Amino acid sequence: MDGRIGDISTPGRLADPAEGVSPEELALAARNHGLPLEALRYDVTPPGLHYVLVHYDIPYAEADGWQLTVGGRVRTALTFDLAALRAFPAVTHRVTMECAGNGRARLTPRPVSQPWLVEGVGTAEWTGVPLRTLLAESGVEPDAVEAVFTGADHGVERGVEQDYQRSLPLADAVGPDPEVLVAYEMNGAPLPPQHGHPLRLVVPGWYGMAHVKWLRDITLTATPFTGFQQQVAYRFRQSADDPGEPVTRIAPRALMIPPGFPDFMSRTRVVRPGPCLLEGRAWSGRAPVTRVEVGTDDGHRWYEAELAPADGHDWAWRRWRAPWTATPGSHVLSARATDAGGAVQPLTQPWNRGGFANNLVQRVSVFCPPDG
Amino acid sequence: MDGRIGDISTPGRLADPAEGVSPEELALAARNHGLPLEALRYDVTPPGLHYVLVHYDIPYAEADGWQLTVGGRVRTALTFDLAALRAFPAVTHRVTMECAGNGRARLTPRPVSQPWLVEGVGTAEWTGVPLRTLLAESGVEPDAVEAVFTGADHGVERGVEQDYQRSLPLADAVGPDPEVLVAYEMNGAPLPPQHGHPLRLVVPGWYGMAHVKWLRDITLTATPFTGFQQQVAYRFRQSADDPGEPVTRIAPRALMIPPGFPDFMSRTRVVRPGPCLLEGRAWSGRAPVTRVEVGTDDGHRWYEAELAPADGHDWAWRRWRAPWTATPGSHVLSARATDAGGAVQPLTQPWNRGGFANNLVQRVSVFCPPDG
Repeated sequence: MDGRIGDISTPGRLADPAEGVSPEELALAARNHGLPLEALRYDVTPPGLHYVLVHYDIPYAEADGWQLTVGGRVRTALTFDLAALRAFPAVTHRVTMECAGNGRARLTPRPVSQPWLVEGVGTAEWTGVPLRTLLAESGVEPDAVEAVFTGADHGVERGVEQDYQRSLPLADAVGPDPEVLVAYEMNGAPLPPQHGHPLRLVVPGWYGMAHVKWLRDITLTATPFTGFQQQVAYRFRQSADDPGEPVTRIAPRALMIPPGFPDFMSRTRVVRPGPCLLEGRAWSGRAPVTRVEVGTDDGHRWYEAELAPADGHDWAWRRWRAPWTATPGSHVLSARATDAGGAVQPLTQPWNRGGFANNLVQRVSVFCPPDG
Repeated sequence: MDGRIGDISTPGRLADPAEGVSPEELALAARNHGLPLEALRYDVTPPGLHYVLVHYDIPYAEADGWQLTVGGRVRTALTFDLAALRAFPAVTHRVTMECAGNGRARLTPRPVSQPWLVEGVGTAEWTGVPLRTLLAESGVEPDAVEAVFTGADHGVERGVEQDYQRSLPLADAVGPDPEVLVAYEMNGAPLPPQHGHPLRLVVPGWYGMAHVKWLRDITLTATPFTGFQQQVAYRFRQSADDPGEPVTRIAPRALMIPPGFPDFMSRTRVVRPGPCLLEGRAWSGRAPVTRVEVGTDDGHRWYEAELAPADGHDWAWRRWRAPWTATPGSHVLSARATDAGGAVQPLTQPWNRGGFANNLVQRVSVFCPPDG
């Protein structure tokens, strides 16, 4: 029988206006999962509730025998096993990580890919070795401009067979803040398989695609990396032939813990009449969040939420809260974040063909029954 | 404003033939998640990869102060905290748990609810106290016929506001095998929030709806329980007015670890030509699995897989494997299980209005490129 990989691995597309979520998108949604929004109550997301996005399969990777190679434009090529990495002083950073495609399924037209609504996020304590420590060991040649990270997950995507690979500009790779980690623990335990066991990159402030899982190689290059995940995927494009700009740091977003209790199927919230404290988290990978506002009339009017003071975890979400008095009827609750760079969440969708960085404000439908 | 809860919590329905997965189904799929099928390789599913189905919200439940009450038709009503439960001899059972709705999204017409494909399953080591031990402490009145279990999750479903509640016939509740547990550990650690922290019921062999999470009360009753999850949901009905039969134990199923590597979007597998070992797991909650067959031509012809010998974990899945030689072209791989009761997975869909127990054989689409 004839055939080629391109027949089963087709270009990206937009859903037709009347097209529901496709079986392929559902298959991705059943594998990958978001943060149930009530889990926003935890400062650090418990295991199994942090969002997960795996491009291909979770590799069967054992810590015993795992090797991380560091090469390319370095003075001395090095190989580390887990024991060697654990021999360096351990560093822990609390990091809010978000999928670049979070919010994609709410776009019109909808890019067909992992169909996140708003829940592709989580916060963890990542422990490992700073990347700059490893690169200080190997030495860096003066002509190095990028570090390319290769994971062990293998697949085909839009017709291109590949190991998952992403790069960082050298300045980001060795910068002191955010400090990039080669991490071997999540929340004080070895990485779970789906989060990159036994090693992953953690790039505080950047969308999830930069945090390469099942990390097995770091290669410094004298020219910018042009691999699929850098030059084809993860770019802000308005059309298929637009070269686009790269997706990098996380845009500001606030999410609310949906108040009251849900209807199983519609997920509409039921809230009793009376005082109701609205609470949630807000984050930005670009600059500290400076303001959160809440709206209870579908975003027509906004009022200030109280933002928790800075707690030293500059790359993690911050708690916010705002009082509300529920009155009988239907309401749409929203929250929006502003960061120190002046970026504020938009009220109209920031559309691009890949569905990246859609930080349109959340809408939480609430029903307050007249009889309490 | 007028309105009632029934306006946001509507009766169950079937999807129209041309209707894609709805935003409501997607919202459930983004919260709840299945087992990535490559994780079938683990005897015991690592944390975060076991399927999760939460009807309402995950309650914010702390172990400190948690109380389990045992009452109703008992001689002595009792209250246990976690320390009291841990003071009993601990028992551990390895159990394969599957959502009763697993396979629902592959049905035609499709019942609109949590849209599982085939991945709503997982296997864990559950540790706790046998329910019969607790009921021996309280004593059981002679007229008791059922035990009703109440969880702390609260919501509205099909117009009915409720705490999640299910019952078991007394004989099942106190039977020696399967032994029902009040469990406080999963895989040797305290239960994660989404799996019922700090206490849940574990009913080996039964579909997931019986394993009540966030367990806070056990009440013995002299009449059969008629609550929503017993009499309205979780019944095999052919029409909306069919009283139906209750959903109880898990029907036999085999699943295959998809071989080769995937295309990101279509999840079609790419396999090189040549020998390829097909592997997977098979289980039944009704009787031991006695046979697994594999098909490589979309279920027209079947051949025997090698089933791993019994390992003493009678309520957990068993490993199977079968050799295959991949040849260039497209293939659909399947596996089907037979149990000691003679039940075999069907080749045509076992349809019911709730989409329960659809154990239609899995279909794994594989592409073997001609050039290797």
